[in-house]
Amino acid sequence: MSAKDRAEGHRRPRVIIIGGGFGGIAAAQGLRHANVDVLVIDRHNHYVFQPLLYQVASATLAPSDIAVPIRWYLRGQDNTEVLLGDVTTINPVARTVTVDGDREESYDFLVVAAGSRHAYFGHPEWERDAPGLKSLDDALEMRSRFLEAFERAEATEDEAEQRAWQTIVIVGGGPTGAELAGIMVLIARHALRRDFRRIDTTQTRVILVEGGPRVLPTMPEELSARALDDLRAMGVDVRVQTMVTEVTPTHVRLGDEVVETRTVFWAAGNQASALGRQVGPTDRVGRVLVEPDLSVAAHPEVFVVGDMAVTTQPNGRPVPGVAQGAMQGGRCAADNIVRTLERRARRPFRYQNRGDMATLGRHRAVADLPGGLRFGGTIAWLLWLFLHIAYLAGFRNRLIVLLEWGWEYLTWQRGVRLLPGRRSRA
Amino acid sequence: MSAKDRAEGHRRPRVIIIGGGFGGIAAAQGLRHANVDVLVIDRHNHYVFQPLLYQVASATLAPSDIAVPIRWYLRGQDNTEVLLGDVTTINPVARTVTVDGDREESYDFLVVAAGSRHAYFGHPEWERDAPGLKSLDDALEMRSRFLEAFERAEATEDEAEQRAWQTIVIVGGGPTGAELAGIMVLIARHALRRDFRRIDTTQTRVILVEGGPRVLPTMPEELSARALDDLRAMGVDVRVQTMVTEVTPTHVRLGDEVVETRTVFWAAGNQASALGRQVGPTDRVGRVLVEPDLSVAAHPEVFVVGDMAVTTQPNGRPVPGVAQGAMQGGRCAADNIVRTLERRARRPFRYQNRGDMATLGRHRAVADLPGGLRFGGTIAWLLWLFLHIAYLAGFRNRLIVLLEWGWEYLTWQRGVRLLPGRRSRA
Repeated sequence: MSAKDRAEGHRRPRVIIIGGGFGGIAAAQGLRHANVDVLVIDRHNHYVFQPLLYQVASATLAPSDIAVPIRWYLRGQDNTEVLLGDVTTINPVARTVTVDGDREESYDFLVVAAGSRHAYFGHPEWERDAPGLKSLDDALEMRSRFLEAFERAEATEDEAEQRAWQTIVIVGGGPTGAELAGIMVLIARHALRRDFRRIDTTQTRVILVEGGPRVLPTMPEELSARALDDLRAMGVDVRVQTMVTEVTPTHVRLGDEVVETRTVFWAAGNQASALGRQVGPTDRVGRVLVEPDLSVAAHPEVFVVGDMAVTTQPNGRPVPGVAQGAMQGGRCAADNIVRTLERRARRPFRYQNRGDMATLGRHRAVADLPGGLRFGGTIAWLLWLFLHIAYLAGFRNRLIVLLEWGWEYLTWQRGVRLLPGRRSRA
Repeated sequence: MSAKDRAEGHRRPRVIIIGGGFGGIAAAQGLRHANVDVLVIDRHNHYVFQPLLYQVASATLAPSDIAVPIRWYLRGQDNTEVLLGDVTTINPVARTVTVDGDREESYDFLVVAAGSRHAYFGHPEWERDAPGLKSLDDALEMRSRFLEAFERAEATEDEAEQRAWQTIVIVGGGPTGAELAGIMVLIARHALRRDFRRIDTTQTRVILVEGGPRVLPTMPEELSARALDDLRAMGVDVRVQTMVTEVTPTHVRLGDEVVETRTVFWAAGNQASALGRQVGPTDRVGRVLVEPDLSVAAHPEVFVVGDMAVTTQPNGRPVPGVAQGAMQGGRCAADNIVRTLERRARRPFRYQNRGDMATLGRHRAVADLPGGLRFGGTIAWLLWLFLHIAYLAGFRNRLIVLLEWGWEYLTWQRGVRLLPGRRSRA
């Protein structure tokens, strides 16, 4: 609805969606045919296929392979506007949000899908030396550090210094950490092998640190064991039941051991967006405790979806904070807005688990599918490849991604190893 | 040669090449079979196909489509090392260069191919509001400003503000300025048309400002006239014989006229790298006056190539500062190093003009080929397309570029319109 229509009083209910990730975009799409005006607000202009972020971080895919402008993605949806901005405040009593500190927008319904950032176990000062992986900017920062480590190792003649630059520590043995460790060791040992003269990139150490007893802890135990074997066979130094107790620019402390390293990546612990606290009660990691219909008890016109929300399935299990959960939650919130406008009863959110996968390297992956189907190896890897290409269908780069992967597979060459302007790091 | 060999006294002549652009890479490749050790030093890790930078700046191609890591490009060349670093000083008497302020490297021969930056007619303070286009970082900065302008226009309700954000001023009517103006007006009027709700992107004003009497001033007059017609037909507001007298964050002054704009791009004037002054006499814009063999009079072991050098062809005309000139110069310098080592006479540099082209839009281009062949239109455009794809052959993304272009041509869609993390601009 234009400003003019609004001034003349033709007023449709207005839905504001905070966040253009899986949850927010699904909510917007669920409102495509609804008699509402939708405003999607995100601090980035792009919608990212997050499960492949680690491939951008490891210089395998280019940012544009896995991201599209939100505007472009939603441009066929005439009732929807997109605003590039940072929501700084939600006022659920006045039903307004403040963007970039000064611009106020009113809503009739609000969908909060602002996601989460990493948590550093009470050590926020570690972030500087151990960046995480949630956004495209994070991925590019990680890529810079990863590629620069080899440049620095090549440029020094001090062997201890060289070893420190060739040691990469990844904290967190969940899917992101395991996938990062797998792809980074492969790149170091194969793709980069012939690019350097002084250093032997096959000697690069990739250490994966997990505090709990096993990697991929949300998967069945047999698949964790399989993944552990795969990672070790590929050359990853996996440490389970190991706590990180210190992160500095020059080393990390793993329990009592000091590991000299200049390159630490963080894939452990989540902290939901601080916006959650402005709309309802939250748990220890900042997730909003939502009702079965995904709304907030005190504000039935406010919905929270994705990994910012904590909700329980009818079977008593919590809904996992994964892409599928966010997408299904976004669709449910949209549906419940439509039902409310049509004076129909809202429906409770029922999460449908479509399976869980992780890929560790060429021909190495694990899959946990509904119906108890669990397997690893080439078939899991091909299935992963197929599904991810299929899921990228909405993105326009599906064919390009396929070609990149095909090319990389055939040649071990990675063409996107570009470093942006040189940063000054200690 | 490894540090170990060097310590043991097996010493081959060492060639340092400053700059991994067209000139430096051509010089390195020319030394592929020479009995020397080569060190290529660049402050970026990538070799860029510069003639297509404007397509990255306009969000048409992704950085990895037109750039490859220098290391990867030269990895088959066993006598060559690559160092990521900034040469801060050249000492032609001691025959050393200093990298990043503290690391010293010795040479027997030096090839300086460090290129140039933009010159702001004595107003360096304009750079902040009118960035130029020489590197991939420049292109990404330009892309951010270009895309953000539409976001800002969409976000404001103030009509004057909206108009200012939808006004793009490009200073300099040479190939870079003309190509930028052409592609930006096309993107605004076609590709972005359906992405926005409040603004009409087809109303975007692109103003191209040229101080001289015609655009593409190095081309024959008839092609300048053709390009002017093409640009005007596409909707570019071309101003010739117009001087920019002021650039501020909110407006530019063109002669007496004040144009409200938030987005100014600079494609006028060059200033050669300041390294030139450290090796020999320079002209007004900092280019080194080199001998016919491309060496410096006082230091026959130092060569300067590309747009950092000024040299005259046997026919009395200066060699133009274009990609071809840099590549041919790099090869000539390499050849003269080999000749010197083999105690053969050096050869003078003879520039072979293989023609000059510029593309302005779909089916709109001009070509000036050897033998007086001059034409414009679809044939020139197809030739440009074909040649650029062929020249990208050394780059691994040739096929991808072709697909991107094909896709864009068919659909007017551009998938690489990604904005990095939000910058704070006044």
